[in-house]
Formats: sequence, structure tokens, C-alpha cells
Amino acid sequence: MKKIAVLLSGAGVFDGSEIHESVLAMLALDKLGAEYQCFAPNINQMHVVNHLTGEVEAGEQRNVLIESARIARGEVKATDELDIAIFDGLIIPGGFGAAKNLCNFATNGSDCEVSPEVSVFIREFVEASKPVGFICIAPIMIPRLYGEGVNGTIGSDLETAQAFNLMGGIHQAAEVQEIIVDEERKVVSTPAYMLAGSISEANIGIEKLVKKVLELV
Amino acid sequence: MKKIAVLLSGAGVFDGSEIHESVLAMLALDKLGAEYQCFAPNINQMHVVNHLTGEVEAGEQRNVLIESARIARGEVKATDELDIAIFDGLIIPGGFGAAKNLCNFATNGSDCEVSPEVSVFIREFVEASKPVGFICIAPIMIPRLYGEGVNGTIGSDLETAQAFNLMGGIHQAAEVQEIIVDEERKVVSTPAYMLAGSISEANIGIEKLVKKVLELV
Repeated sequence: MKKIAVLLSGAGVFDGSEIHESVLAMLALDKLGAEYQCFAPNINQMHVVNHLTGEVEAGEQRNVLIESARIARGEVKATDELDIAIFDGLIIPGGFGAAKNLCNFATNGSDCEVSPEVSVFIREFVEASKPVGFICIAPIMIPRLYGEGVNGTIGSDLETAQAFNLMGGIHQAAEVQEIIVDEERKVVSTPAYMLAGSISEANIGIEKLVKKVLELV
Repeated sequence: MKKIAVLLSGAGVFDGSEIHESVLAMLALDKLGAEYQCFAPNINQMHVVNHLTGEVEAGEQRNVLIESARIARGEVKATDELDIAIFDGLIIPGGFGAAKNLCNFATNGSDCEVSPEVSVFIREFVEASKPVGFICIAPIMIPRLYGEGVNGTIGSDLETAQAFNLMGGIHQAAEVQEIIVDEERKVVSTPAYMLAGSISEANIGIEKLVKKVLELV
């Protein structure tokens, strides 16, 4: 049975992992007969957003690992608990948490850096040549992790695509139901809620991405 | 296009709505061509549970409506904003939030009462003879809402089934992939994570429940 890590960044589209994308990735993995284990960095969130108003809650602090446990039904490990030998691949859902907690793209744009704990974690998969699937805005980390000439998509947003290219990647525009595959580096990406107008639209691309990641194992 | 309300109780299995069940219900609704609108009561959660440790966070307080907005991607209304005329039915995911925030079954067992705001909300559907689907532990509210002789399931847990019967309901044992239907009262229930060993197992019953609720419209 293939075993895939799922890297979360909190629980909620505006300050953590996009919840629908995370659950849809787990559903697709389970349906395709793969086992999954959730992970998250044990760091504080960049901030807490009131998802009803969209406003930042000044003074409130939440931990990425603890909040990610909500999506994982308690079954989540810290990124430094990874034993790469027992995993075949990795999937990273989107949500602003990917751009605020996993890296700092939300504040630093194309100068962004991947958070130290997260960089160590993902690079274990990269160096072992194990496939990684990036969903929604998570692909913005691809050029930093794989270097010059890597292919990926964040959908069709011009500014984000430009940042992807400035960082050394080769952005491929894609529609919501499509995936972009860098076969050589075993990197798969899909726009999901960068473009999706509905949950089942997001689901089409996510199912394809999960299937492709499992094929690349 | 059929329009279905989804009643949430926070965001996280131990103190709010079970996240997988909520997302799977939305996915099934969207796939079957129905529109959905999330609702939640604007009240404080009974408590906040650290989902990594399972411990109650003493002194922390979160609001059910605000946390539910995380699952709803910000698109959630307070229960007192319901215009029953534009809705065809209701679905209530499980999670401990259903037994802690929507009613007080978690502390009061078979003496439980449905929270006032929630009772007013659900009774609008009951009185208009619009179908309601209850998932996981949410069906424990069925006898309080529909009175003597109503059929429903919480799976196969003997103690919970006994409480259901003590409250005047007729409990029907069911397996994870099954639904129990009270055709006369238009009530559908399924065990989901009361029994599910995996997300795709929970999904089977939830898909059936959503399909049946839409048929009963």
C-alpha cells in the first residue's frame, strides 16, 4: 500500500490550509487505496483571521500543528517527526496558510523563503526523488525547492505567474480541471481554488493530481 | 435548482462540526446539482479542545459562527438569518459540536435539550415538512425535534441508541454505509464517523443521505 504524507498549514482558507482542498485530497488518496499521514510544522501561525469578517484578530495567536489537527481528526505529526523511508510521496493543499505559514510569499512575493522546518521536511522528498503534489497557491514554493527550469502552475493569475517565473520556475497556465506535471522532477500542480467556482470543480483537479502523484511513485 | 441549508457547529471533530463530514456533504450536494448555504448559531462553543492532545483549553473561548466560517470559506449565515421560503431542505453534519453546541447531549444525555437558536432554526424545516438529514451524532436531536415514534440511527453504539429510545425515538441499528429513512417525517440519518474507519467509508453513507434528502424535496 502506498503511503503519502499530507502537509497542512492550519485549518481555514484565510490563515491556514484550505479545508475543502485538504479533505478532498485525503478522500482521493483513500479512494485510490493509498494510506495517508498528516504533518504540519510546530510553529505559530502568521496571524489569525476571523473567517466571518475577513479581519485579522489582533493579539490572538494559534499554532499551525494544533490547528491542523482539526482537519486531521487529531492524527497529525510535527514535520520533524518525518521518517522519509516509510513515505512514497507528499501532497500539499493550498489556502493562505501555504503562503503565510509554510513560506512567506504573502508578505515577500518573489523574494519569499520557505519556512526552515518546512524546507527541511519537503527537501527530504525532493532529495529522495519522491513525487510531490502542490495544490492552489502551494505551488509558489516549487521554484525555491526545485531550482531553475521547473514547471508548475498556480492557474492563470498574471501577477502570481510572474512571481513564479521571477523565482526561476517556468509557469504553465492551467484551467481548474487541469494538472501540470514536471515528469523529470516528479512535481505535480493544480489550481483548485485559485480558480474553482465550486467544490466539485476543485475536486476534479485534485483527484487528477492525487492519481498522478501515485503513478509517479 | 434545489437549495439546501447546511447547519454547522464549529470546525473540528472534538468541539465543533466534523470537518470531513461537512466537506463531504457539500461535495455531494454540489455534485448532485444542488446549491447549499451554510448556517451556524451565533453562540460561544461549549469549550475549545486542543485537537492534538485532546485536552480542553481552559480559559479559551471561540464562537460557533466564526469558527464554522472556516469550513464555509467565509460564506456562512447566522441561524436567525434563515428565510425558510427559499430553502428546500437541511443537512446537519456530526462531530462533538452537534452534541455540545447544537444541543447538550454531551453533558445531559437523554435529558438533553436543543439550543434555543438551533431549535427555532431546525423547527422551521420540520414545520414546513422539508427534509432534514442528520449525520453521525447529530441524529440524537431527532426525538426532541420530531417527538414520539420517529425513526433514526446513530449506528450501533448501545448506550447512545438507548438514549435515543429514552427520548421517544425508535432507534434503528445501521452500518456505516447505510441510511435510515423516516419517510413520513422526511428524516434521514447515517452513522458516518460514529462507525467509519476511513474517509471514503464515511463518504458512502453521506452520499446516500444527501441523495435521499434531495429526493424527499
